[in-house]
Amino acid sequence: MLVVMQAHATDEQVRAVCQRIESMGYRAHAMPGAQRTAIGITGNKGEVEPGTLEEMAGVQELIRVSKPYKLVSRDVKEDNTVIRFSGTEATLGGPGLAVIAGPCAIESREQAFLVAERVCQAGAQFFRGGAYKPRTSPYSFQGLEEEGLRILAEIRQQFGMKIVTEAIDNESLELVEEYADVIQIGARNMQNFSLLKHAGRAKKPVLLKRGMSATLEEFLMAAEYVMSEGNYNVALCERGVRTFADHTRNTLDLSVVPAVQRVSHLPILVDPSHGTGKRNKVTPLSRAAVAVGADGLMVEVHHQPDQALSDGMQSLYPDQFDELMAQVRQIAPVVGRTVPGIGAHAPVAQALRRQASATTPAAH
Amino acid sequence: MLVVMQAHATDEQVRAVCQRIESMGYRAHAMPGAQRTAIGITGNKGEVEPGTLEEMAGVQELIRVSKPYKLVSRDVKEDNTVIRFSGTEATLGGPGLAVIAGPCAIESREQAFLVAERVCQAGAQFFRGGAYKPRTSPYSFQGLEEEGLRILAEIRQQFGMKIVTEAIDNESLELVEEYADVIQIGARNMQNFSLLKHAGRAKKPVLLKRGMSATLEEFLMAAEYVMSEGNYNVALCERGVRTFADHTRNTLDLSVVPAVQRVSHLPILVDPSHGTGKRNKVTPLSRAAVAVGADGLMVEVHHQPDQALSDGMQSLYPDQFDELMAQVRQIAPVVGRTVPGIGAHAPVAQALRRQASATTPAAH
Amino acid sequence: MLVVMQAHATDEQVRAVCQRIESMGYRAHAMPGAQRTAIGITGNKGEVEPGTLEEMAGVQELIRVSKPYKLVSRDVKEDNTVIRFSGTEATLGGPGLAVIAGPCAIESREQAFLVAERVCQAGAQFFRGGAYKPRTSPYSFQGLEEEGLRILAEIRQQFGMKIVTEAIDNESLELVEEYADVIQIGARNMQNFSLLKHAGRAKKPVLLKRGMSATLEEFLMAAEYVMSEGNYNVALCERGVRTFADHTRNTLDLSVVPAVQRVSHLPILVDPSHGTGKRNKVTPLSRAAVAVGADGLMVEVHHQPDQALSDGMQSLYPDQFDELMAQVRQIAPVVGRTVPGIGAHAPVAQALRRQASATTPAAH
Amino acid sequence: MLVVMQAHATDEQVRAVCQRIESMGYRAHAMPGAQRTAIGITGNKGEVEPGTLEEMAGVQELIRVSKPYKLVSRDVKEDNTVIRFSGTEATLGGPGLAVIAGPCAIESREQAFLVAERVCQAGAQFFRGGAYKPRTSPYSFQGLEEEGLRILAEIRQQFGMKIVTEAIDNESLELVEEYADVIQIGARNMQNFSLLKHAGRAKKPVLLKRGMSATLEEFLMAAEYVMSEGNYNVALCERGVRTFADHTRNTLDLSVVPAVQRVSHLPILVDPSHGTGKRNKVTPLSRAAVAVGADGLMVEVHHQPDQALSDGMQSLYPDQFDELMAQVRQIAPVVGRTVPGIGAHAPVAQALRRQASATTPAAH
Repeated sequence: MLVVMQAHATDEQVRAVCQRIESMGYRAHAMPGAQRTAIGITGNKGEVEPGTLEEMAGVQELIRVSKPYKLVSRDVKEDNTVIRFSGTEATLGGPGLAVIAGPCAIESREQAFLVAERVCQAGAQFFRGGAYKPRTSPYSFQGLEEEGLRILAEIRQQFGMKIVTEAIDNESLELVEEYADVIQIGARNMQNFSLLKHAGRAKKPVLLKRGMSATLEEFLMAAEYVMSEGNYNVALCERGVRTFADHTRNTLDLSVVPAVQRVSHLPILVDPSHGTGKRNKVTPLSRAAVAVGADGLMVEVHHQPDQALSDGMQSLYPDQFDELMAQVRQIAPVVGRTVPGIGAHAPVAQALRRQASATTPAAH
Repeated sequence: MLVVMQAHATDEQVRAVCQRIESMGYRAHAMPGAQRTAIGITGNKGEVEPGTLEEMAGVQELIRVSKPYKLVSRDVKEDNTVIRFSGTEATLGGPGLAVIAGPCAIESREQAFLVAERVCQAGAQFFRGGAYKPRTSPYSFQGLEEEGLRILAEIRQQFGMKIVTEAIDNESLELVEEYADVIQIGARNMQNFSLLKHAGRAKKPVLLKRGMSATLEEFLMAAEYVMSEGNYNVALCERGVRTFADHTRNTLDLSVVPAVQRVSHLPILVDPSHGTGKRNKVTPLSRAAVAVGADGLMVEVHHQPDQALSDGMQSLYPDQFDELMAQVRQIAPVVGRTVPGIGAHAPVAQALRRQASATTPAAH
Repeated sequence: MLVVMQAHATDEQVRAVCQRIESMGYRAHAMPGAQRTAIGITGNKGEVEPGTLEEMAGVQELIRVSKPYKLVSRDVKEDNTVIRFSGTEATLGGPGLAVIAGPCAIESREQAFLVAERVCQAGAQFFRGGAYKPRTSPYSFQGLEEEGLRILAEIRQQFGMKIVTEAIDNESLELVEEYADVIQIGARNMQNFSLLKHAGRAKKPVLLKRGMSATLEEFLMAAEYVMSEGNYNVALCERGVRTFADHTRNTLDLSVVPAVQRVSHLPILVDPSHGTGKRNKVTPLSRAAVAVGADGLMVEVHHQPDQALSDGMQSLYPDQFDELMAQVRQIAPVVGRTVPGIGAHAPVAQALRRQASATTPAAH
Repeated sequence: MLVVMQAHATDEQVRAVCQRIESMGYRAHAMPGAQRTAIGITGNKGEVEPGTLEEMAGVQELIRVSKPYKLVSRDVKEDNTVIRFSGTEATLGGPGLAVIAGPCAIESREQAFLVAERVCQAGAQFFRGGAYKPRTSPYSFQGLEEEGLRILAEIRQQFGMKIVTEAIDNESLELVEEYADVIQIGARNMQNFSLLKHAGRAKKPVLLKRGMSATLEEFLMAAEYVMSEGNYNVALCERGVRTFADHTRNTLDLSVVPAVQRVSHLPILVDPSHGTGKRNKVTPLSRAAVAVGADGLMVEVHHQPDQALSDGMQSLYPDQFDELMAQVRQIAPVVGRTVPGIGAHAPVAQALRRQASATTPAAH
């Protein structure tokens, strides 16, 4: 059930409707749009009994929602969700293309800083790097954990890039929320509903990756889990799905980008690194992702991919990432997107100057 | 790395080798077999430095293990793992076919008892029923939680069936470990490595379901996560994989049964209910699962499937389950398996007598 | 559109209705059943105009068929199709389990006879062997062509087994129709509609294998192509589908057996050799196929699999096929099937006697 | 086996080597490149016996080819294959983006001309339209056959666009070769090896679509079938593969474009119409296909998609195709491609003038 408020409804009227909904035992989710505010109702078992909601001041109409997803739907919120961050113009969603880059895993302070400097120079506004790594084998490197998060926080301070890193359980989620700017939920946890609910109670935005065999509806329902707990800052990320095809590690399904945009207001990014698993495919598929209309890219970069502790095969060399950014910058305007130039975000220029005059990060 | 002990090695010699391994900073996993004990070594980054292990008393040879899985492998333990339970002859693994039956979700004490009585009479030695339900939608019934676990514990007491139920996060895992006999890890959590590690520290056996798009190796590696923490009582369960085929909800991959048995000593069961998602396919595929050599079946049964709160489409009516058991009893001997008859396990007969002389469960 | 005749309608009445349908510009397909004859109408673009059909003598009712397949449907023919052959009790469909065995390709007279003798002794009533091989590489062995067909015809004469062999285009179809008893259409040609139509005009039964990524509906529609041209003797064969799973070459989808049987009257067999691509999986999956209710098995056997010109990896040794038959014989009765014993079909006993008293086939 | 000729080898030397190869019982395939000519050897069973080939005049070296595909490989021909046509600058392969557009099926002269006029104006250099339609149902519209081919030939004459149309068997192949400029082999026939060999003996270029579940290697081997018969003018076309994903009819696998380009010299186009099956996804995925580096697009356009006899759901309105071309024109230069403008190919301008001064096609 969805309560659509009148265009001129006051904040007080919205609040009153929300209170009435909560007093009926449901949850109210006010979603302000450019034209109107819509209030989603969840928490019902079976049909919502609307009572006298329709006659309250400021209410325009009640709409029954038949799709299984509600809060992620454009029915509830027509305008695109744009996730903003303090101290930067970078967004997830909106006209600016979000570029998230960095190594698969944070391996050391030196490694992280070397890569950060390069991706920052190339124009990335977000830095990625795993402190908690979900690895197929229990005997593989599992991440530096909190030490990794501390390194990431330093990188934000030095370079001004916002930090995106993965939480793999409720314990790591609390720490990620504390240190990072965006909480990543990985493909393997896309239907770890307990984790999704916890992320829904976090104060930081969530980047939710598509599961390896998730349908569009399951993907959206996973986002709905997060939103249903009150965290409306969710961005989605396509990262390839499992098929019989063996020339890439996964099959990158770019058609999901317009498919998401058609039914949902949430931003949708693309990860061509996991999506192909092969370094030589990352740049062409990045171009394609921007051309198809994605809201951003998530790319793995490593200064020594052949010595990476995880996923080296798919990591770009920094020079290759420069080239990727150069190509993407040319395609973005065609689809009405802007891409930040070198030093485009103010703190970066400063950081790079500081960096230049400082000793090398290894010496810190 | 694997230390193979001599056939006549003493317990003391095994202990000494384990201590030496631990003192080297690794973990030792002693796996006694019919002929010999093998000791798996994990916890190494890179190669294990064997030092003087080879010369210790009772050691026959050291074997380098090149497969990514170790403890699940037949290289480490040649004999089939048989998981035993107190107070019953039912096992997971071994010549007896394990039959796990019950509703998808525990909906009420009455529902649970009605179904339990019927599946117990039909010969099921294990009762299944979800107290915590991982549902695609946050607005669907999520289970009775601890109340559901209490009902399950009552069913064990009344009918003597062992209880199998799913844990969906670390919190529910603790409660499931307390109330149930087997901790189920669902398909969606097959690569929730944090949960797997916690299950590896639990004292109860684990039933691990195959993920929807898991390869054989990923499936075995998930079991390796549990075992690497010290819990060697792991049973696997095939439940269908995601494909393009749309005449069933999932495509049941029965070939994984002989594939697992070839490389691993762990029991492998089959869930034809989730594996097909259609009631009319459950019995034929149960016959096929027994014929292919599965160690057991996991079947959903509901007394009123059309009113079930989840997965009613795939639940059998109790009469259909009787028929399934009758058919399975005929096929099992062909593959050298026994199936318990009606009242075959002692507590059941008593329970049914008690039950018969008592008021109906609805009246409790 | 379907014309259902009365139970006591005469042949003359059926003929009259068929003539009326043809005179209306459609095609009539009379399908006699145990209780009644149904007449399928095809050849219409858009709706069939029934005119006065309903009032003709012997007509009980007209039924509009909404499913895309008509002639393959149980709506048109309730009873199972049983394909019979002269001079043998072996059938495709019916209570007897059809066993088709032989090498992937006919490589030489000697090889074919050696294998034929063994599979005949073990109880196979049908001999398979490719004379025309659809190979992924143009540089691989493409079959002995007509010479291979001649060898197959000799095998029929010597052993009494009926011959199943693949046609790969319209030219080979004519020859296969001339020499063999069953025309096989391979998985790669399941949607070669031109070939299907030609097979529909042939006088011999057709064994149609499921395409590697065919849905149930596409599989049935391919059979409909054959039937729509007037050849109603079609048997289907599941042989595995393409999925991400890599422990077998294909994923054998046994659930398609009950799925076909639910909506269609056509026999459905299973090929566990192509369905798994691995010798050690063939016997377990054969047991499973019989247990699930398949109408028959198609199994590759070779006397020297490691030297086979194609698909040696998945071919059984003759001794393994003996063992397979022994196991299958025990499971078949559980699902109400009979399996011919050694020498069960009369010509076999004779053939084997002849064979025993003759020189070895190599010497012929 | 591959014979690499010296840079300055004469035609006569090449011919002499080819003759020697043929006289040894093999087939020789001379592939002239920018720097050198390479001669592929096929027709061998087992290893090629090189004899004295290496010592012949003009021979630089012999290379053993270990990949299953030879003639399609960049090892044999380093430079990209560019397929040229008389009377137009349009190519398949090369710097110009090939745009093939038109209706799924030729339904009538009027329909074909209406669509042709619009796609020609928009810049398409190739016109597509099925005269022979491989349809899932035998009762669906199967195409106008030779009448359709005649209409296509008229369109070439009127508009100067080259004609691409599908052959579905050996009979239709002969007619398609006669009337059309490019022989299309559809996805369902990608492993119809008999048809591929016939196409390999045709004098016209072949456009080979990827099968629904074809791996990269199978796709290339299908092209190898055509080339092994002597027809080296083969272009490939990705059109989506079968997966579990249900938001599009197929999953368009754009990563296959750089994958093909890495190992093969053949052009690779993309068909976003079949690749998505949904009109609203065609334009975004066309942008992505050009951005990823495809050599061309194949797009379905219909003037009344809702009344199309086949695949109307995925056909663009002519106005949408104009918009698609406008967007593609902006992206192409970024990847170093040119796209013909309106009236770019000379005959078009004339045709459009003729068309403008003529009566409407319906009146013909």
